[in-house]
This record gives sequence, C-alpha cells and structure tokens, in this order.
Amino acid sequence: MGSVLNIIKIGGNVIDNAEQLEQFLEMFAALQGKKILVHGGGKIATRVASDLGIEAKMVDGRRVTDEAMLDVVTMVYAGLTNKKIVSLLQKFDCDALGLSGADGNAIKAVKRPVKEVDYGLVGDILVDSVNALSIKKFLEAGFTPVFSAITHNGLGQLLNTNADTIASALAVSLSKIYETRLIYCFEKNGVLRDVEDPTSVIRIIKAGEFQELKSSRTIYEGMIPKLENAFHAIGKGVKNVYIGNALNLHLYQQGEFGTCLVSK
Amino acid sequence: MGSVLNIIKIGGNVIDNAEQLEQFLEMFAALQGKKILVHGGGKIATRVASDLGIEAKMVDGRRVTDEAMLDVVTMVYAGLTNKKIVSLLQKFDCDALGLSGADGNAIKAVKRPVKEVDYGLVGDILVDSVNALSIKKFLEAGFTPVFSAITHNGLGQLLNTNADTIASALAVSLSKIYETRLIYCFEKNGVLRDVEDPTSVIRIIKAGEFQELKSSRTIYEGMIPKLENAFHAIGKGVKNVYIGNALNLHLYQQGEFGTCLVSK
Repeated sequence: MGSVLNIIKIGGNVIDNAEQLEQFLEMFAALQGKKILVHGGGKIATRVASDLGIEAKMVDGRRVTDEAMLDVVTMVYAGLTNKKIVSLLQKFDCDALGLSGADGNAIKAVKRPVKEVDYGLVGDILVDSVNALSIKKFLEAGFTPVFSAITHNGLGQLLNTNADTIASALAVSLSKIYETRLIYCFEKNGVLRDVEDPTSVIRIIKAGEFQELKSSRTIYEGMIPKLENAFHAIGKGVKNVYIGNALNLHLYQQGEFGTCLVSK
Repeated sequence: MGSVLNIIKIGGNVIDNAEQLEQFLEMFAALQGKKILVHGGGKIATRVASDLGIEAKMVDGRRVTDEAMLDVVTMVYAGLTNKKIVSLLQKFDCDALGLSGADGNAIKAVKRPVKEVDYGLVGDILVDSVNALSIKKFLEAGFTPVFSAITHNGLGQLLNTNADTIASALAVSLSKIYETRLIYCFEKNGVLRDVEDPTSVIRIIKAGEFQELKSSRTIYEGMIPKLENAFHAIGKGVKNVYIGNALNLHLYQQGEFGTCLVSK
C-alpha cells in the first residue's frame, strides 16, 4: 500500500461565506501529505441563474439540469468557485490544480437514465468512472487536485454531478493506489447522539452499529444517505471516513475531528 | 534542445461560433506532438455581464475590470468556455487539461499599475510570470494544457489578462525547454499584401522587413501590436510565429498555414 491520501469534501455553506471559506482553506492547505479537495456549489449558482432569468427546477429535492442551467453551474462551480478556491490555496502555499471531470479525463460519467423523472444533464458515476491513473499523475507531480462537481461523458457533453458522490467515487478508486481517507465536512461537529447538543459527537461508528443508530433515530434524514455512502466506500477499500465541522479541520491530524466511521 | 512544442492561440470569433469551434478543435486535436491552447473570451462574457446588469466599461478599447466583471470573466472564460473546449478535445481523443494561471501556479501576474487609467483587476505579465516547470510537468505527463486568460497574483487575487500576451509569454518561457512555435489564429488567412484579396497572403516576413511593411501601410492598425508581440517573442527565443485563419489549422503541419514570421 502506498502513502496516505486524504480526500476532503466541503459543502455549500462554507463556500457561501467568504471568511469561513478562507479560514477552511488555510486549514486544508496546512494538512500534511497528499490530498484532494472536492467542493459543492453553494447558493451562488441559484442566484446567478435567477439573475439571468433561468428558473431553478427541483424534483424531489434534486436540481433538474437543462442546458441553460448546465451553463450556469459550469460557470459558477468550475469557473468562479473553483478558481477562487485555487487562488486562495496558492496564497497558502498549496499547489492547487482546479479540475472538472473533463480535465485530464479525470471523471467520466453517464447521463442519468430517464425513468419517472428526466433529471436532464446530470451525470451518474459508474464503477470505472474515475481515471485513477490521471489523478495519480497530478498527485505524484506534487499538485493538489481541487474538483468541482462537473463531469463529462467523453463525447463532448459536460454533466452536473453530485459532489458527495464524486468524493466517494474518488476515494474508492484511489484506495487501490493509496491508503485513502475520506472526510466529509459540513456544518455540524459530527454525528450527534443528541441533535440539540453540539458536544455530543459520537467519536466512532462501526459498520455493524449503523443499523441500530438508524432504528433508534439517532441517525435520520439527510445523514442516512451520507452515512450509507460512507460505509459503501469503506466496504470498497477506503480506510476510514470522517464526518465533521469544516471549521474543525485543524483537529483532523490530531485525531480529534468529528465522527470516524470504520468497518469494524 | 528538446522536442517541438506548438502553442496555439484562438480568439473570440471562433469561440462564439459553436460549429466553427468544434471544427477548429478537431484540427487542433489532430496536431502531432506537444501542444498548448490559449483561448480568448468571445462575446459571451459581455452578454452574461449585460444580462446580470453589469455594465462593461471600456477605456481606449480595453476592458476595465471591476470585481463584478472579474467574477463574470472568471465564470465565462475559466468556467464555461474552458470546460466546453476541454470536453470537446476529450471527444477528439486529446487529453486536454483546462487551466487558469492560478492552477498549478502556472502564470503569476501583477495588477496593472495605475497611471492615467485604473484598469482594475487586470494582470500584467512579467519576465518571470510563467512557471515553466509546472507546465512542463503537464506536458511530460501527456496532457495538453488549455489556458483561459485568467491569471492570479499569488496572494489570492485572480486577474483578467490579455490572451495574446499569455500566449506570447508562454512561448518565450517554454522556448528554454522546447523548440517552441507560436501560432496566432484569427479570422484572416494571414498578413495580406492586399487587404481586399484573401489569397494575397505574405508567406514569410523577416524581422528586418517589418518596418518597411509598416511604412508602406501593408501592415496597419490591429496587426501592428500583434506583429510587434510576435517579433518580440522571436527575439526572445521562440523559433517561428505563424499568423493565419483558425479554420486553416489543418494546413499547419503541411507548412502551408498563413504568414510565417522569422528572425532573418
């Protein structure tokens, strides 16, 4: 097994706050060793779309991506947000390299098949979507890849893709080369035993305990798909998955960051 | 001297025409050997800015870039245009890697000093702006860098930068490593002896002939800075500079493309 690789995903709430974003990126830049950042979009895309008179369509809480909306998310995620993050990381002496899935053919997705709903130009990640060889080249050359959640289909079509899924797919694929850890950063301190008490972080959850925590409704709603994704990644070779507060990232290499999910 | 490197710059008129852009990119993808593409912005940025209610300010034919406009050009050049180009090149089996100057710290510019005019967030290229080592890593790893005309100052600030200047600076810097040729693509067939006759292309212009062609007004207006840029690059180590029609790029490796500028 090769060296350690940390894959960190940040969501929209940090991206929407310039001060918090810079604070987070300074901590990310300080992380030792090989690392990858995956970022979501934040509310800027919705605002830009609205200002451009493009209506944001949602079905079951998911964005439906028509051509006009794909242009907007490509502009905002792969352009504005990605390049702002990269330039800030460069300021903090992290040699960041902003990527979409099209760049270096890093992530090739397929347009989501139409069943009840046509999600439009949305990419689904398949088992062989991640081009680990291409990403390994960047890592070994000393760059820190920064992925926006835009992929392509290899036929000239860009696709809007879920950032959590990209992070997980990268982790699974790269775990064949590196000892890979996946860190989901969000606005809570971790999985909480008591949702009202931010200090009640459950430090470790084993795969076998997940069902019980669901049954007792300690884990519910939006956390369920997050943790299902996480345990799936662990089952596929990812060493550990962490879930915690973006602004606590400095605690990660001290072993005190959020909730750690392990196989057993 | 190492292998040959072709650096090709395309302007806005090809980018604004989806069909011509795809045709051009197919020819670019077919070029043998190491290559870099530098693209301008096209009219999309102006349209997006106008749709967002941001006024495009011009002084002496140059765009003045305030913060709102920088966000727009970052979205359009580094996001939409760059990723569309990269995904199309991937379709044509060219392993393209979209870059701004911030990515891999490839091009570090300085904010243009304020003299009579404050151009705002515009980057000037200096002698040591280009990080040839970083770009060499991409080329040697088999990638084809595709640069948008956005740079950074190394302190977290993105800067809007002239694409012709970026192409020329890349060529000068990389000529220390590769036998570098610079190809400016635009809408004419080359430098014309008779502006009314598109077949009257001057095949070769030597540095010593430039002054005479200016005096006789064979070369005038917008062509003058282009050719000054070109001869400057040649003086600094670039092998040849070509100027010709983007849609004739397939003629380049047959030695029949546009006007070739040489030192003597």
